[in-house]
Amino acid sequence: MTPTITAFQNSPDRGRGLARDTRVRWALEEVGQPYDVRLRTFAELKAPEHLALNPFGQIPTWEDGEVALFESGAIILRIAEAHGGLLPPDPAGRARAIMWMFAALNTVEPLIVDRTMVSLFERDQPWFEARLTAVETQCRRRLDQLSAYLGQADWLDGDFSAGDLMMISVLQRLGSSGMLEDYPNLAAYVARGEARPAYQRAFAAQKAVFEAAQTAV
Amino acid sequence: MTPTITAFQNSPDRGRGLARDTRVRWALEEVGQPYDVRLRTFAELKAPEHLALNPFGQIPTWEDGEVALFESGAIILRIAEAHGGLLPPDPAGRARAIMWMFAALNTVEPLIVDRTMVSLFERDQPWFEARLTAVETQCRRRLDQLSAYLGQADWLDGDFSAGDLMMISVLQRLGSSGMLEDYPNLAAYVARGEARPAYQRAFAAQKAVFEAAQTAV
Repeated sequence: MTPTITAFQNSPDRGRGLARDTRVRWALEEVGQPYDVRLRTFAELKAPEHLALNPFGQIPTWEDGEVALFESGAIILRIAEAHGGLLPPDPAGRARAIMWMFAALNTVEPLIVDRTMVSLFERDQPWFEARLTAVETQCRRRLDQLSAYLGQADWLDGDFSAGDLMMISVLQRLGSSGMLEDYPNLAAYVARGEARPAYQRAFAAQKAVFEAAQTAV
Repeated sequence: MTPTITAFQNSPDRGRGLARDTRVRWALEEVGQPYDVRLRTFAELKAPEHLALNPFGQIPTWEDGEVALFESGAIILRIAEAHGGLLPPDPAGRARAIMWMFAALNTVEPLIVDRTMVSLFERDQPWFEARLTAVETQCRRRLDQLSAYLGQADWLDGDFSAGDLMMISVLQRLGSSGMLEDYPNLAAYVARGEARPAYQRAFAAQKAVFEAAQTAV
């Protein structure tokens, strides 16, 4: 059965590929699994039909006939376990790739999301400059550590894995902050991920959705 | 081989069980797996020996002779996959339990950690009251959604799973904020987890470490 994911009908990132459906599309493209997409308006995300799929009212969700899921980490793990190519075959390598997925989602992404939220929603507050400095200091501390770990390696742990897919997707959310440019090896790591044909297809697919929404308006 | 975890020699939570080794100890107690603990001072967390285990300089870590890991989510998944009792045997139920682990770590915990950070480190800032209100509003939105989903069920999805273990561990970090008391079903859910004998043993073990550190001083 072809799996179905949900995505924004009109993504707030304006097609820059930062919404969390892109990482799921990327994983599906890496393993060559076709998929269907059900688009959601913001109003639909709060409606009972969507809350039954994700009680937190977010995208992406996943339905494959056997199970319905939310959380991009859980969905990508589901894809990686059903196909080859995103998790090493040996148990230790597999466990480490999953570890990097959790590290991306629990140790790196929250700080980057915080920075985005400050830059978007606290710009008019009297504390804006002080808060931005504080949250960027926290981000840089994590980026220092990640950069030191990665060194000149292509990927986090041997071959490209679901851990890299998730970490690169998270680092992309630094967006126009300019912070990534201070870490040449991390910038090259993200570029290496973005150069993969599977990522290119995923990016184009999510961008086409945004452009269609603009045409419709 | 008996696995070894790392934990704070002198936990900043003063033995209240909120450091992330407690959730790993809890998982180990649920499955009846004995373990060793290597205690780390704050200075040791930044030393090469520890950074080789976790480049982000955090606890807990995990070594079992086959693989070394960090990230409490990855460690608990490793434990759950090696033993019965923390993941349902059917593939769909297993995928949903893992989904709740990711939801706890990526959708719920970051907001709760933010609130803790504001209350600990921004108390003297001119923006303190406004920021606390903002972050508590975000927390309450998530708690509203989680409370509506849980309803009067004992656990998130059928029997107790690693998803509940993680979600309860995350909700405990609301600590003395008083927010949990506004959600009687979530407060009862946390209490149900804390009443489990395995949790009691894990809590006592981490508390004994803190008390020993105080005696030593």
